Amino acid sequence: MKKVAIIMGSDSDLPVMKGCIEKLDSFGIPYEAHIMSAHRTPELSHDFSVNAEKNGFGVIIAAAGKAAHLAGVLAASTVLPVIGVPMKSSTLDGLDSLLSTVQMPSGIPVATVAVDGAANAAILAAQILALSEPSLTEALHKMKKDMADGVAKKDAALMAELTK
Amino acid sequence: MKKVAIIMGSDSDLPVMKGCIEKLDSFGIPYEAHIMSAHRTPELSHDFSVNAEKNGFGVIIAAAGKAAHLAGVLAASTVLPVIGVPMKSSTLDGLDSLLSTVQMPSGIPVATVAVDGAANAAILAAQILALSEPSLTEALHKMKKDMADGVAKKDAALMAELTK
Amino acid sequence: MKKVAIIMGSDSDLPVMKGCIEKLDSFGIPYEAHIMSAHRTPELSHDFSVNAEKNGFGVIIAAAGKAAHLAGVLAASTVLPVIGVPMKSSTLDGLDSLLSTVQMPSGIPVATVAVDGAANAAILAAQILALSEPSLTEALHKMKKDMADGVAKKDAALMAELTK
Amino acid sequence: MKKVAIIMGSDSDLPVMKGCIEKLDSFGIPYEAHIMSAHRTPELSHDFSVNAEKNGFGVIIAAAGKAAHLAGVLAASTVLPVIGVPMKSSTLDGLDSLLSTVQMPSGIPVATVAVDGAANAAILAAQILALSEPSLTEALHKMKKDMADGVAKKDAALMAELTK
Amino acid sequence: MKKVAIIMGSDSDLPVMKGCIEKLDSFGIPYEAHIMSAHRTPELSHDFSVNAEKNGFGVIIAAAGKAAHLAGVLAASTVLPVIGVPMKSSTLDGLDSLLSTVQMPSGIPVATVAVDGAANAAILAAQILALSEPSLTEALHKMKKDMADGVAKKDAALMAELTK
Amino acid sequence: MKKVAIIMGSDSDLPVMKGCIEKLDSFGIPYEAHIMSAHRTPELSHDFSVNAEKNGFGVIIAAAGKAAHLAGVLAASTVLPVIGVPMKSSTLDGLDSLLSTVQMPSGIPVATVAVDGAANAAILAAQILALSEPSLTEALHKMKKDMADGVAKKDAALMAELTK
Amino acid sequence: MKKVAIIMGSDSDLPVMKGCIEKLDSFGIPYEAHIMSAHRTPELSHDFSVNAEKNGFGVIIAAAGKAAHLAGVLAASTVLPVIGVPMKSSTLDGLDSLLSTVQMPSGIPVATVAVDGAANAAILAAQILALSEPSLTEALHKMKKDMADGVAKKDAALMAELTK
Amino acid sequence: MKKVAIIMGSDSDLPVMKGCIEKLDSFGIPYEAHIMSAHRTPELSHDFSVNAEKNGFGVIIAAAGKAAHLAGVLAASTVLPVIGVPMKSSTLDGLDSLLSTVQMPSGIPVATVAVDGAANAAILAAQILALSEPSLTEALHKMKKDMADGVAKKDAALMAELTK
Repeated sequence: MKKVAIIMGSDSDLPVMKGCIEKLDSFGIPYEAHIMSAHRTPELSHDFSVNAEKNGFGVIIAAAGKAAHLAGVLAASTVLPVIGVPMKSSTLDGLDSLLSTVQMPSGIPVATVAVDGAANAAILAAQILALSEPSLTEALHKMKKDMADGVAKKDAALMAELTK
Repeated sequence: MKKVAIIMGSDSDLPVMKGCIEKLDSFGIPYEAHIMSAHRTPELSHDFSVNAEKNGFGVIIAAAGKAAHLAGVLAASTVLPVIGVPMKSSTLDGLDSLLSTVQMPSGIPVATVAVDGAANAAILAAQILALSEPSLTEALHKMKKDMADGVAKKDAALMAELTK
Repeated sequence: MKKVAIIMGSDSDLPVMKGCIEKLDSFGIPYEAHIMSAHRTPELSHDFSVNAEKNGFGVIIAAAGKAAHLAGVLAASTVLPVIGVPMKSSTLDGLDSLLSTVQMPSGIPVATVAVDGAANAAILAAQILALSEPSLTEALHKMKKDMADGVAKKDAALMAELTK
Repeated sequence: MKKVAIIMGSDSDLPVMKGCIEKLDSFGIPYEAHIMSAHRTPELSHDFSVNAEKNGFGVIIAAAGKAAHLAGVLAASTVLPVIGVPMKSSTLDGLDSLLSTVQMPSGIPVATVAVDGAANAAILAAQILALSEPSLTEALHKMKKDMADGVAKKDAALMAELTK
Repeated sequence: MKKVAIIMGSDSDLPVMKGCIEKLDSFGIPYEAHIMSAHRTPELSHDFSVNAEKNGFGVIIAAAGKAAHLAGVLAASTVLPVIGVPMKSSTLDGLDSLLSTVQMPSGIPVATVAVDGAANAAILAAQILALSEPSLTEALHKMKKDMADGVAKKDAALMAELTK
Repeated sequence: MKKVAIIMGSDSDLPVMKGCIEKLDSFGIPYEAHIMSAHRTPELSHDFSVNAEKNGFGVIIAAAGKAAHLAGVLAASTVLPVIGVPMKSSTLDGLDSLLSTVQMPSGIPVATVAVDGAANAAILAAQILALSEPSLTEALHKMKKDMADGVAKKDAALMAELTK
Repeated sequence: MKKVAIIMGSDSDLPVMKGCIEKLDSFGIPYEAHIMSAHRTPELSHDFSVNAEKNGFGVIIAAAGKAAHLAGVLAASTVLPVIGVPMKSSTLDGLDSLLSTVQMPSGIPVATVAVDGAANAAILAAQILALSEPSLTEALHKMKKDMADGVAKKDAALMAELTK
Repeated sequence: MKKVAIIMGSDSDLPVMKGCIEKLDSFGIPYEAHIMSAHRTPELSHDFSVNAEKNGFGVIIAAAGKAAHLAGVLAASTVLPVIGVPMKSSTLDGLDSLLSTVQMPSGIPVATVAVDGAANAAILAAQILALSEPSLTEALHKMKKDMADGVAKKDAALMAELTK
């Protein structure tokens, strides 16, 4: 199976992005996680992106906050699908990260998920890889069923609480 | 090759989404385009989504405006990757469509592109399908090169104009 | 009297929505509360909505956060009035929930109340049911009078405090 | 059948609100339309609201722009359900009208529809009145079916166009 | 000297509005403070406003949050200058209060100060009353000088700290 | 009667501010109108403000767009009430002007009216001056009555149109 | 004198950026203008930035719209001051460009001017270069005086018009 | 070397602006820090700015919150480059400060950095001064290298943690 790259702009993004790592682990998807910055290590980021395809990656997940250029910068140098996770920062409540990530110009898409949407980035990566990995498709169907069951259990618990 | 589904919430989305159709055509990616609404034809949308996988689709592109639920509603019933295109509407300049499309809860990602980002939705679909279609990878590399050449030509034209 | 359905997208909405439940209790309006998700349990939500009318419901209250599709999705499959309560979430301060709930396309209205406006959803439901339940009209007039009296009491307390 | 009141803050709201009037006409719902202002004719507005219940109204629809107080001010003096239509104005793209209409304090709900959502206000009024008017319920089901048929027709036209 | 009326929409506004009361006290401006609501006590608010002029008031200060209609509703029924203080509420960070207060339609101005700008409302009232009260003009000049002196002291303290 | 100063940051503000000038004319309030800029003519602005009180002005109206500092800068150097008119500019729809004008720090209020609210600035000035000019109070009451009559006429016209 | 680089993300930025070019011309500042894209020609952009210092540039001006990464990406690879001009695009009114340009993480500043602030970018570049070019300082003082004179002339024209 | 002026609108800005002072210290750039207010000490601010050039300053850094006029007001009276730091305040999350600082009219640029971007203001000042101070250029290159090394170390630490 192709690997997923998780690139974080800063180690302060790690607590939120743990949700992405754990979800990939739960799917058994191989990944590499790196801290790289579009602004602090531009050449490293560029080299990583240029070589990602031949290094066995299938999807790149990029998480960054504020003027979040990381996902776009990686997408500029690869034809792999790049998933952007806008990180909430200390000001402007994540709106800056979201717009910086999603409003990409024509030609270089970034597949953007919700602000701090770490787990969804992993699930989207799984959905993409599943197109050529039937076992992932199965795992995704199971996850969907588990989610539905989880909601049903909470609904039952609520009903029990309200009719006490 | 798996097909791409282009689902529009309204036929008023067609002028913008033509940019998506043309881009898919340029890649030679097979597609079906439909007008279906999360709100006006909920069952049709649901049935389409439930059956998309077994009907040979690999990616779903959903375009909708205002309270843009279409992409999320399709994503709820499939494990295929769903790409959301928020459409600019007559009020609030697309912010409503963008937030309604991208801010999906954990478990059901929508791969969101820019407001009115029709061509990018097609390119993202191509990037996803390319993971198992080497010819698409080649086409994407060519498109990247063509874009760079196009910018270089415009740069040369500018220099010519300024040194007149 | 027709019943009110309170549908929450997640059990994390319950602390806020208790304010809705208590208000309905205070009016003696029968209700059922459920946790159902437009995205995690799409078929359950759809079935609930399709059958709500014949199952004796008169009004549906739907509470959801972020890309809050629940109210709109329920409204798609019923002709009952659907009241939407946008929930404040951890990012974007509820603006995403508000726009996702209120900006419905023509044909499928959602009667939207304020962000986290749980009690107002219950009062609006009471106002709607009151059109065919004179006792509710009376209760609503009494509530209005009690509110006015409460303000007057606070005004008197303020005056007492300031003239100390 | 109880009447619907359509109250506009200004005659400049009429072109948009025609969409509301026509929809009520199509349902055969009796209505009165007035221009009244929370700010320019406060006593008239107040008197209208205080007496609306006994004057045979069942629902009040209020349309206003900018600092849109009309719906809230009417709701303050009646226990009838009040539907608010935020009007897009020349600045701020309707965000001011939307927030001024929907963010009502606890105790006095306004059932808010989308910015310029005139037709949806009429449909919501019909849904509310339908609880005691079975003929309206039928009409609403028919409208839903017609909408679905309309979408299907547009879908067929699209398919025809694309396969030309 | 004419009196200032301080009208708060809720007693939860009192902690912030204490800043207004103390500032009026420091100017020796007579005032009355009331809790009155455009929505919960519409007739009281209206009567207060209609009679404010003949009851010896010169300026009305109105503080309210969320869909903050209080200042506008008072301004509708008086020709006295009305100062609006938008209160920050638990959602949307005061943007709703600000837009609801300041975006008044032509004909009925509200003199709006900053979100939670309680002290500035008092100073603005003093500036207005000072036009016919020379002693207030003097007090305002003194306050301006004191502010400048306060800044100078802080500047000196900073310099001392930095050159330690 | 004290004079009103109308200060515009740019002559491009004149078309909107004509609405202010005409309204002052209709009240018979003496005024001077100037183009002065907090940024382009800082000393002129400062001198004007410092001397406004002794030059017979009672109120200053300041209109500016974008980073609209004019009203605040004038307010810094006078104890006269300063009314700010945020002008809609070519980007950001007036939100920048509004926040730059209204969010003044404690100590220096600006009485802010709506974006492009030129006429309301004049009316607010009239309300302020009316505290010591009974004839203005009368004129303001008459204006309020005329506005109400105007609304009533439009209401009658609407009714006539609808019952045709 | 060191040269200024004007880098535009797209030739569609040229009409606005002409204002920058003309202003540099008026100061007699040497410049090179290029069309280069952070996303379409990432390597070109990177190379330009890495070599700008030794190629005789003193300041880089970067103009881009939407998810405007250009200024930040150039700033990542040079220690020259980089001035960012956020371009208004067809959606979101320039807010996306502004936040993408200005909200840079610690370590890599972008000196951001107003949305579409092309002339100001040139003036800022002149101010920076003036620190080692006394003739530019003189020119800037003259420009400031000319601006003040221009405002004075418009003020006189206004006075003439109003006293006609 | 020319000095940097750090002007804060209030001593409450000091905790954030310490990041600016420390960064200037680390570059060995001489500076003066002052508390001065565009609104509370307008003449002091004006005098400081008018004389900054001849008093040996090369760059002015201005930090202010809310309706943040300080940077613009200083820029109005000097031809030195002025760097604006918008401070996050208690309401509106810094959006007011950002727009008030960056949206300057043509002719008077403010080089704006991110909300609370104190360190970046210092780095930008260093970049500007470096044009005539080769030692600063060296220090900036070293800082860039240190940043890259810092990211590499964090990346190694992450890899170590993940492969434990």
